[in-house]
Amino acid sequence: MIKAGIIGSTGYAGGELVRILTGHKDAEIKWYGSRSYIGKNYADVYRNMFQIVDASCMDDNMEELASQVDVIFTATPQGLCASLVSEDILSKTKVIDLSADFRLKDVHVYEAWYKIEHKAPQYIEEAVYGLCEINREAVRKARLVANPGCYTTCSILTAYPLAKEGLIDMSTLIIDAKSGTSGAGRGAKVDNLFCEVNENIKAYGVATHRHTPEIEEQLGLAAGEDVVLNFTPHLVPMNRGILATEYAALKKDVTWDEVKAVYDRCYGNEKFIRVLDENVCPETKWVEGSNYVDIGFKIDQRTGRIILMGAIDNLVKGAAGQAVQNMNLMFGLDESEGLDLVPMFP
Amino acid sequence: MIKAGIIGSTGYAGGELVRILTGHKDAEIKWYGSRSYIGKNYADVYRNMFQIVDASCMDDNMEELASQVDVIFTATPQGLCASLVSEDILSKTKVIDLSADFRLKDVHVYEAWYKIEHKAPQYIEEAVYGLCEINREAVRKARLVANPGCYTTCSILTAYPLAKEGLIDMSTLIIDAKSGTSGAGRGAKVDNLFCEVNENIKAYGVATHRHTPEIEEQLGLAAGEDVVLNFTPHLVPMNRGILATEYAALKKDVTWDEVKAVYDRCYGNEKFIRVLDENVCPETKWVEGSNYVDIGFKIDQRTGRIILMGAIDNLVKGAAGQAVQNMNLMFGLDESEGLDLVPMFP
Amino acid sequence: MIKAGIIGSTGYAGGELVRILTGHKDAEIKWYGSRSYIGKNYADVYRNMFQIVDASCMDDNMEELASQVDVIFTATPQGLCASLVSEDILSKTKVIDLSADFRLKDVHVYEAWYKIEHKAPQYIEEAVYGLCEINREAVRKARLVANPGCYTTCSILTAYPLAKEGLIDMSTLIIDAKSGTSGAGRGAKVDNLFCEVNENIKAYGVATHRHTPEIEEQLGLAAGEDVVLNFTPHLVPMNRGILATEYAALKKDVTWDEVKAVYDRCYGNEKFIRVLDENVCPETKWVEGSNYVDIGFKIDQRTGRIILMGAIDNLVKGAAGQAVQNMNLMFGLDESEGLDLVPMFP
Amino acid sequence: MIKAGIIGSTGYAGGELVRILTGHKDAEIKWYGSRSYIGKNYADVYRNMFQIVDASCMDDNMEELASQVDVIFTATPQGLCASLVSEDILSKTKVIDLSADFRLKDVHVYEAWYKIEHKAPQYIEEAVYGLCEINREAVRKARLVANPGCYTTCSILTAYPLAKEGLIDMSTLIIDAKSGTSGAGRGAKVDNLFCEVNENIKAYGVATHRHTPEIEEQLGLAAGEDVVLNFTPHLVPMNRGILATEYAALKKDVTWDEVKAVYDRCYGNEKFIRVLDENVCPETKWVEGSNYVDIGFKIDQRTGRIILMGAIDNLVKGAAGQAVQNMNLMFGLDESEGLDLVPMFP
Repeated sequence: MIKAGIIGSTGYAGGELVRILTGHKDAEIKWYGSRSYIGKNYADVYRNMFQIVDASCMDDNMEELASQVDVIFTATPQGLCASLVSEDILSKTKVIDLSADFRLKDVHVYEAWYKIEHKAPQYIEEAVYGLCEINREAVRKARLVANPGCYTTCSILTAYPLAKEGLIDMSTLIIDAKSGTSGAGRGAKVDNLFCEVNENIKAYGVATHRHTPEIEEQLGLAAGEDVVLNFTPHLVPMNRGILATEYAALKKDVTWDEVKAVYDRCYGNEKFIRVLDENVCPETKWVEGSNYVDIGFKIDQRTGRIILMGAIDNLVKGAAGQAVQNMNLMFGLDESEGLDLVPMFP
Repeated sequence: MIKAGIIGSTGYAGGELVRILTGHKDAEIKWYGSRSYIGKNYADVYRNMFQIVDASCMDDNMEELASQVDVIFTATPQGLCASLVSEDILSKTKVIDLSADFRLKDVHVYEAWYKIEHKAPQYIEEAVYGLCEINREAVRKARLVANPGCYTTCSILTAYPLAKEGLIDMSTLIIDAKSGTSGAGRGAKVDNLFCEVNENIKAYGVATHRHTPEIEEQLGLAAGEDVVLNFTPHLVPMNRGILATEYAALKKDVTWDEVKAVYDRCYGNEKFIRVLDENVCPETKWVEGSNYVDIGFKIDQRTGRIILMGAIDNLVKGAAGQAVQNMNLMFGLDESEGLDLVPMFP
Repeated sequence: MIKAGIIGSTGYAGGELVRILTGHKDAEIKWYGSRSYIGKNYADVYRNMFQIVDASCMDDNMEELASQVDVIFTATPQGLCASLVSEDILSKTKVIDLSADFRLKDVHVYEAWYKIEHKAPQYIEEAVYGLCEINREAVRKARLVANPGCYTTCSILTAYPLAKEGLIDMSTLIIDAKSGTSGAGRGAKVDNLFCEVNENIKAYGVATHRHTPEIEEQLGLAAGEDVVLNFTPHLVPMNRGILATEYAALKKDVTWDEVKAVYDRCYGNEKFIRVLDENVCPETKWVEGSNYVDIGFKIDQRTGRIILMGAIDNLVKGAAGQAVQNMNLMFGLDESEGLDLVPMFP
Repeated sequence: MIKAGIIGSTGYAGGELVRILTGHKDAEIKWYGSRSYIGKNYADVYRNMFQIVDASCMDDNMEELASQVDVIFTATPQGLCASLVSEDILSKTKVIDLSADFRLKDVHVYEAWYKIEHKAPQYIEEAVYGLCEINREAVRKARLVANPGCYTTCSILTAYPLAKEGLIDMSTLIIDAKSGTSGAGRGAKVDNLFCEVNENIKAYGVATHRHTPEIEEQLGLAAGEDVVLNFTPHLVPMNRGILATEYAALKKDVTWDEVKAVYDRCYGNEKFIRVLDENVCPETKWVEGSNYVDIGFKIDQRTGRIILMGAIDNLVKGAAGQAVQNMNLMFGLDESEGLDLVPMFP
């Protein structure tokens, strides 16, 4: 039985980790960290867990935690994991960081986009970018995994095979993404009040959103060239789900079947990636509560562009589900253990 | 492995049965019945099931079905199950009817409220009302189970212990219930369009809703007297969930602890019923996707009344989940097999 | 031109006052008070007002304000208006208080339910309870109007004619109310975040909500007897709207037409009260954005009860619209000036 | 007093026309056409209009109608207006067609995208494309106005000044649009049921949506060159609102102020177009219920692209509001008569 500790267990991603690990047959949660609710019953914070979780919230003592558990999940804002991690901790336990601290390989890029100093740059190289379908083998051996962002998981996986096989002109790639509101976190802000979000849609972070360099880095690695792109996130009045609509010029004339074959070469054996049939567009509702990535695409002969669409549940494949998928890999378990979550409709 | 057939598998309750049975280790679905979509791939109707369910929709041939499966679920409008069931079918297979056909013991009450002739009154007596927590032993032995309605499950379980122990004046009981829109079904009606339901709340079926006599009959059995009550359903702009707020005059002065003890005597060992702590009100979100019933109550000294509140997911405990719970009982399985569904939040 | 000042203009009720007064041909806003946003452009707080309102937010200086305007609206939490009002102020300007400070005639009831000391009990008697349809003449002459609460406006007006004409047993009255989330205000609280409210319904303040004594007082005055009742509010995932479902035992056998006649005697000339046709239930969406109260009712012969239903827009008839209606009366204008708001659908 | 007739008055756009014209001081509705509800009280179809509209629904008799009214609004699916319009009708009355029949100047393009034969191609040249801010003078003199589509109004107005002044490379223009569900109409379809739309987002009509050629034609006229672009609509779980996010490569280095100046030259005197301050992104909620178009933009130095964002209420500026704006122009009234609608928030 893998002993797991969660730092930040009362955020939405942390709560989802608890939900998923509760149904995982080879793991048990030993530490429900939450600086905001220290000493409070976890089930009093998340009442869905009443009579399911019987534990109190603990402080963020990573040293102490490292001595008690096999794996630590940090579901906290950027900066925290980097400020706490150490050789001592990594020698005792594995760390899966759901924040951005170890996702970018260039510390200057990190510091430029996140506007904070990186406290543990010495681990950046060692850290494995935990997009399981791309870095599976490296994840298996990792001590420290940087769990990808929600927008980035969706954006990268949707375009990855085409970038890798050189099908699209990377300089033309534009990603227009739409996210449910749980992605904004559980902080008490006027902007996230029901009446401000409901019956509304807006773009935000235009040309400045921090997930941009992460997408650029990973798609750049796939394409074998530097990638600079536009990424625009939007806030949608729904709890969960991300839809990424991506536009790029095709480098050559291709048919739907040929593009499908490109996806199949990459993802043919991937359980959690579903490339949809022709003329079917992904909908976030069809993946809700599950670890699936649904991908569809359409070739526009008139403009010479391809339009890619990817959908995930931002809290599952975009956060907690992928973290558990990484944990499974790191501990040699079946990759889908605890993740056989059938999407819930409606 | 229990072989299951579903008639009406493309309605919302039918779809939820598919979701739940897909995760059930001792059952497999052999027949996806759907008169509206005969021959169509099930996963083309419910795309959440893409690459999970690989089967086509079948006609409603109950004879044929009875020879192939161990249990038939009928998730269809009233009238259908009664028109198809026969001694031959019941001798070959078990039937769990999610419609109202066998819920009411008095055929005249059925015909008066549903305005249709009952086609199989000879099975009414045999049929077991499948509210597992109340009729567990009878369900175990049943061939034909009448799965309770969504509003009724919530309304009855919330008040049952107090009715049974004579704590409340049954003639004063008023039930004000609120339901998500999946309870209205998947039929294409203007009233259920997004723009008609969203940003709106209304009562409907006031003093005439068909779940009324079902609640009256069951609470009457509990109380040992005839019960006549007001039941008012409301449509709420959300997908899932029922909240029942119930009002009744207390027959004597009691404390919160005393009432809690009454609930505990009835439900102390019930896995799926969670009686909440004092001053905690149930919320439908806390049970979403799960088979739980959450119950809270408040004594109002000023008026001498008690206010009871119960919350369920209408598609799970109010339909498909309870149906599977009944199946588990009928086949001697662990009652919660396939139903360890942790509520999803948010 | 009536010069108006608003204290608390950046709350939801304050914002709605601005929207309505902007379209009022005989009034202009001279003071946009908002302690939280002093000095900030009003249109930067509420961007719907961009290029419509060109003014900065001001402090809550009631003395200063009284010397500049003809009427002050206080759209602030309880306690503020009572702490600021004075003979000097009332001699210079009229005050319409949207808080609870002057709604209850018994200061002890106020202090018991609101848990604060009343700072200006000397004005309680003078203050007029501003439910225009009931207290029209008194409002016309008032210096200080207590604008009714949102739940109370809906709850009282729905039952008032029946209470007044002695049709119902007041000791049996139960009010089950449902409100959109703007009623919870614009404060940054976790409970009001989109993801907490959306796809959820719950009761709150059960047996303790502060609107209870206000309803009891007014319906008691109508009935000519002390009234004690149950009032249960619920939070609904929508921005606007209140629906009150009310239950009471009828004192005698009556027909729908007889009850309709009772309503007509009271409300026959009321522009803003619409008593619906038989078998039509009010829906909050049909009054959205308007000052209407829609009322429907159903007699249940089986239980001897009548079920009343009333719907309003909580920010209009439940707050800002009614405040403007009161202003119109106080200044001798056409009562509906600025309030010819056609409900918006969908 | 202008006498107006509406064909298709019970669709969502038709209902909005009724709402707006009800508040118009120089117009009155004489004919509530609705083939689906002939003979039914209009206020029984749209209960918001109870005690406001006292009229029955009429058949679509355009001949008869032409003899009674000064202007006919056709708020019907494509094909109907073209099949009914004639010289006789146009000689008696003005026609504002909210469908697509006369929007495209090339009948072959119309027939290719709409897959129907055009029944009155002889009026295509005469018809004026009723985008008031662009074609104001022509509208004033028109007998037949083609009211622009909802997506197109938003998409075109957002990019128009930049196209006209040659600031952007038109071959790079990509429009990613998001719409509330009222845009899908009031037809009873499973796809538009509450439970299918709620908590969901999807793209649809990818590379094939019929508003594409309309946008291309108008922006082509502005730019003085043929334009071929990608337009992708998305369905958002909200009632009203369209947000268009548009991407294009800048032809030269410009500052925010320079681009703002371009907008100001075009729209500086336009009441209904609000170009927002720097770093402010439009939100659909801020224009809800009003005739405004809110526009924001951001220059991305990294990619050399500009990101434009436009927001409208699809039923107002995207349909009924613009139709009334056109009517005002055609009859020599103040262009904003009846359209001083302050956006409603929340």
